[in-house]
Amino acid sequence: MKFICNKEELIKGINIVMRAAYSKYQKSILECIHIKTEEQTLLLDAFDMTTAIKTSVYAQVEEAGETAIPARILYDIVNKFPAGEIVFEREDAAIRISGANSSATLSEMDAQQFPAFPVYEGNADHQIQISRQTFKDMVEKTAFSAYTGEDRPIFTGLLLETNPQDGTLSVVGIDGIRMAKKMSPLSCKSHIKAIVPAKMLKEASRILGDGEEEISLCFTEHACFLKCEEIEIFTRLLDGEFINYQALIPAQYKTRVKVNTGMFERSLELMMVLAREDSSNLIRMTIENSCIDLQSVSEYGKAQDTLSVEMQGEVLKIAFNAKYLLDVFKVIEEEEVYMEFTGRLQACVIKPVAGDAFLYLVVPVNIAE
Amino acid sequence: MKFICNKEELIKGINIVMRAAYSKYQKSILECIHIKTEEQTLLLDAFDMTTAIKTSVYAQVEEAGETAIPARILYDIVNKFPAGEIVFEREDAAIRISGANSSATLSEMDAQQFPAFPVYEGNADHQIQISRQTFKDMVEKTAFSAYTGEDRPIFTGLLLETNPQDGTLSVVGIDGIRMAKKMSPLSCKSHIKAIVPAKMLKEASRILGDGEEEISLCFTEHACFLKCEEIEIFTRLLDGEFINYQALIPAQYKTRVKVNTGMFERSLELMMVLAREDSSNLIRMTIENSCIDLQSVSEYGKAQDTLSVEMQGEVLKIAFNAKYLLDVFKVIEEEEVYMEFTGRLQACVIKPVAGDAFLYLVVPVNIAE
Repeated sequence: MKFICNKEELIKGINIVMRAAYSKYQKSILECIHIKTEEQTLLLDAFDMTTAIKTSVYAQVEEAGETAIPARILYDIVNKFPAGEIVFEREDAAIRISGANSSATLSEMDAQQFPAFPVYEGNADHQIQISRQTFKDMVEKTAFSAYTGEDRPIFTGLLLETNPQDGTLSVVGIDGIRMAKKMSPLSCKSHIKAIVPAKMLKEASRILGDGEEEISLCFTEHACFLKCEEIEIFTRLLDGEFINYQALIPAQYKTRVKVNTGMFERSLELMMVLAREDSSNLIRMTIENSCIDLQSVSEYGKAQDTLSVEMQGEVLKIAFNAKYLLDVFKVIEEEEVYMEFTGRLQACVIKPVAGDAFLYLVVPVNIAE
Repeated sequence: MKFICNKEELIKGINIVMRAAYSKYQKSILECIHIKTEEQTLLLDAFDMTTAIKTSVYAQVEEAGETAIPARILYDIVNKFPAGEIVFEREDAAIRISGANSSATLSEMDAQQFPAFPVYEGNADHQIQISRQTFKDMVEKTAFSAYTGEDRPIFTGLLLETNPQDGTLSVVGIDGIRMAKKMSPLSCKSHIKAIVPAKMLKEASRILGDGEEEISLCFTEHACFLKCEEIEIFTRLLDGEFINYQALIPAQYKTRVKVNTGMFERSLELMMVLAREDSSNLIRMTIENSCIDLQSVSEYGKAQDTLSVEMQGEVLKIAFNAKYLLDVFKVIEEEEVYMEFTGRLQACVIKPVAGDAFLYLVVPVNIAE
């Protein structure tokens, strides 16, 4: 094997696929990046048995071949090489990398042992096309609410569901205390329903960068294939039944306020300074006389804020973990939103003043009245 | 006590003095920032018994007084307040802070217990004036070589020494494996010799920012007072005898090379990728035929670099902890430097091609030949 490639392009490729390489288990083939020549191209891939990522980099291939090199070392070595051309060639059962006056000889692992990249064999109906911006936006605005523990694996995923009737794609994340739902218009012939690991969607969102190209998402019963230009990502779906989240959304409210998103966010941050002294990040809210009064207390003292709002319905005293509300308000771009309440023990709904592009639920904290 | 001040100015002041506040000991007065009104000014100070920092902030004082509030909480609360005017006033034995629609009530500690800021009672001869840029430069280029352990406290300081004869200030740091010395022209009538904690000099360097104003350093037998505009820093000197570092500098060399600083630094970084797999960060260097050959090895493979240099004297094989050389090359701004060697077990000298503005020593690693 021998090829010559450009340092910067190779680093970009390594950076994309190395996110799927194990970093913890010494001497495992899955710590490696697999490099294989194909005509005037290098195919790079990495695979952690749940997610696999593949990309390609232009190279001048002088002798075909393949190798597997631990991802972290490969990245660090190539990254410290001088800019310009780098030559890779096999020499005495190791890979010699050279450029300018520098060289490194890295031991390789058996590329034959590297798992084959999965091939999509699904139905053409089970595909959706989505703009990169919409994809990233849907992930950013829901993934924070996915569960991160290990005891309820199904909730570490986001539910992706298409609705051919009304032409929408919805993404839902839920962790038992809050729920996030984001909707986008999308034309899709079939009903697709899949639970995709939130961690992988966040990685994909980062890897994809900011271009204009559309993303294809192709589904089989147990996997999702994401393609965008020269990047291909495979991930296993989570098996199991997602909760019937529609049933959790209160049908009507008893108290509704329209709040300025930026002001409410800033106010939550001020409350957090004292609330975070305690693990429950407790804030108390009183809604009355067209005002929301927020209050947090710790051994250092107390913070208090009063915001004027448009208010409908009943007076309400309610308490929250301020962090859960803050997570929601941080991702809302709209200037104003509705917060709807059905009582001091029922989930609060946060939604747009018009339309249904998003919906958040946050369960309150039960405190003595 | 009651005063009104601007949020941004107050945050700037808190940020300066809070570096001298304890952050670990709950309920200690030394966790606090001490705030005292004085005419139309607030004096802020903090004190950790080794270092004290004082600054002032403009305020509209309506009622004179003083208070002490835990530094971290004060900073976080003020930082989250809306921009603009903030009012501080005592209310029921607590301090009420208010601005726009927000307020916080913080419990205070007994300001009477706060230690008085030390007063300089030294001799006018024991003062030096130095430009802010020179001060920061001297600290940045020597402080990394000060010792950071606890068993040899004297070496956690930097030796500041004036030489009235040749009109210079020198700053020296040493930790047993490397030494850094930086000289600057300075007119000073008296011979000053003081060992100042490196940690405090680094903090001062950060606090002082990038202005043009001169810094005054005033010394007593046991303390150093640093003044710059509205900032005043007091620090205790380290007691004891600094090592006679001059005796450590080899008088002549057997091998000398002139290296390109940037290329040598990049090469060290490439070596470090493999060298750091081992705690000694070992690199081997061979100097011969007007080349330096660098090499590092780990279980993953080896890296090798060959740099053309101007060379005088004997062929040499020597080994170093690459990190110690890298620390030096990172702070050198000159395009080229001399590296001088007197043998494979003697310290390497790194110095300018002309002049004596700096000098670094790095002790090699003793390996089998």
